[in-house]
Amino acid sequence: MSVSGQSFLKPESTLYSGPHTNNMSFQRLVRFGNAEGKTQYGDLKKEATGDLIGQEVEVLKGDLDTGFTATGKTEKIKELLCPLERIPLCVCIGLNYKKHAQEANLKIPPYPVVFTKPADALNGPYSDVSIHPEAQGMLDYEGELTVVIGKDAKNVSEADALDYVLGYTVGNDVSARNFQLPDTSGGQFCFAKSFDGFAPIGPAIVSKDLIRDPQQLHLVTKVNGKVRQETETSDMIFTISKIIEHLSKGTTLRKGTIIQTGTPSGVGLFMEPKGFGLLKDRDVVEISIDGIGSLRNKMVFE
Amino acid sequence: MSVSGQSFLKPESTLYSGPHTNNMSFQRLVRFGNAEGKTQYGDLKKEATGDLIGQEVEVLKGDLDTGFTATGKTEKIKELLCPLERIPLCVCIGLNYKKHAQEANLKIPPYPVVFTKPADALNGPYSDVSIHPEAQGMLDYEGELTVVIGKDAKNVSEADALDYVLGYTVGNDVSARNFQLPDTSGGQFCFAKSFDGFAPIGPAIVSKDLIRDPQQLHLVTKVNGKVRQETETSDMIFTISKIIEHLSKGTTLRKGTIIQTGTPSGVGLFMEPKGFGLLKDRDVVEISIDGIGSLRNKMVFE
Repeated sequence: MSVSGQSFLKPESTLYSGPHTNNMSFQRLVRFGNAEGKTQYGDLKKEATGDLIGQEVEVLKGDLDTGFTATGKTEKIKELLCPLERIPLCVCIGLNYKKHAQEANLKIPPYPVVFTKPADALNGPYSDVSIHPEAQGMLDYEGELTVVIGKDAKNVSEADALDYVLGYTVGNDVSARNFQLPDTSGGQFCFAKSFDGFAPIGPAIVSKDLIRDPQQLHLVTKVNGKVRQETETSDMIFTISKIIEHLSKGTTLRKGTIIQTGTPSGVGLFMEPKGFGLLKDRDVVEISIDGIGSLRNKMVFE
Repeated sequence: MSVSGQSFLKPESTLYSGPHTNNMSFQRLVRFGNAEGKTQYGDLKKEATGDLIGQEVEVLKGDLDTGFTATGKTEKIKELLCPLERIPLCVCIGLNYKKHAQEANLKIPPYPVVFTKPADALNGPYSDVSIHPEAQGMLDYEGELTVVIGKDAKNVSEADALDYVLGYTVGNDVSARNFQLPDTSGGQFCFAKSFDGFAPIGPAIVSKDLIRDPQQLHLVTKVNGKVRQETETSDMIFTISKIIEHLSKGTTLRKGTIIQTGTPSGVGLFMEPKGFGLLKDRDVVEISIDGIGSLRNKMVFE
């Protein structure tokens, strides 16, 4: 199920007129439905390991615009939703792991390689990803460390970059490779990756204060329980600080923007025999990052 | 000056929960500042030829979310603003004119070539475009017929596509070619075209009811008064209907999305001698489409 669109046509919030102080107070932000079906934000007080359904969270009041305050109340997660209700844009970095660059036989570029997914690509951490008939032929996963921007960023230096980060989550840059190959795409990646629901993220946004070094994280992608990708984020070509510096050059990264920081080696496209690694109907992709948690989505062919 | 961001963090408008009837009633929608500095929407009752400053328009009440109603009052345009206050996304089509494909020596692709500009790229029809120091070395223009989506579109057929169009305007896909060349971009166009203010549009959104055939329009781009691009939109490889069909495959095109439909031959990059055609500080780019009007932006190097 895709998270629905933006209220972009409504007058701007007065709270939203420039770079704000990041007044967010949470450790591991989740959005969830409780037993009565009410949607709320919650703060997970311990590390998100395993399935979060049934786990207790502290209920938070507020939202990303106004900031959060603790209520002292706890509730159980009945349904786990996308931790962000909507985003301005998902900015994606291609070719950002040294080993993946080797696997794809591509030259390391002097700047991050940039493409995008629209807001409607957003999807929940346990949601099914509905696959359009024309996107089924060469469907692939890309496990990625995902950054959430916490305040508007423009012309930010590498040294200051992490001040603009709200937190980190896990992302899958779902890709319809049949539309990504140069012969069909004219070389541009956006279309192949922009289908509704092609950017599941979660399970939680872990506050940057809890992640000592985002370049020292361990990421594993499994398909139907079998390991496909495994990396340390230290293998990245461009660090998160460098990516934010580059993306914000003359360009405003709005609060709420998510950045998928690139995928390591092990994508389905390059597995042998040819075609073997690509996703089939009902395949489950699980991507885990130590200290952040696991994203688990079933591909459902329409 | 760049148009500022989106109120994407506010709860969704109840009016915005699905595909709406297009209840827009205007001929040529403009957004303007009057003598007292008040910003309003207006309807230009005659064709937008020449400078619109000082011209009389009928003041409209409402916005793109609620629809417009005529007030019967007229006012003079003191400042002409971007006809859209904000957008969900600017989707761009590359390589969509047969002659431009020849000029760039590129094979005609089987599908439209797709990249994006973010919401903050939006800029006014007479605004200066502020050019970041790193984007000045190979700055270029791309005159384009620009489509405004009037209601949410997903899985739309070619036959129904134009029902989802609100109207047409003129666009400049401003491009920092130094970041677009394969060696710096890894082949992806987004970064080179996503700087704040790199998508001026206007002067008006002309209702689709006034444009008999969007594939029979005449477009001219001038730099400092000299013609650089001239085409009929009949030279397009993919028609607007075909583009909307393709972009909406499994992918929601939100109301307010703009589509820049590609540029004809005559961009600065390919002019001889090499470098001669690129834009310099204070160059003025004027793009005109018969029946829609003229967009006129000065490039101002920071």
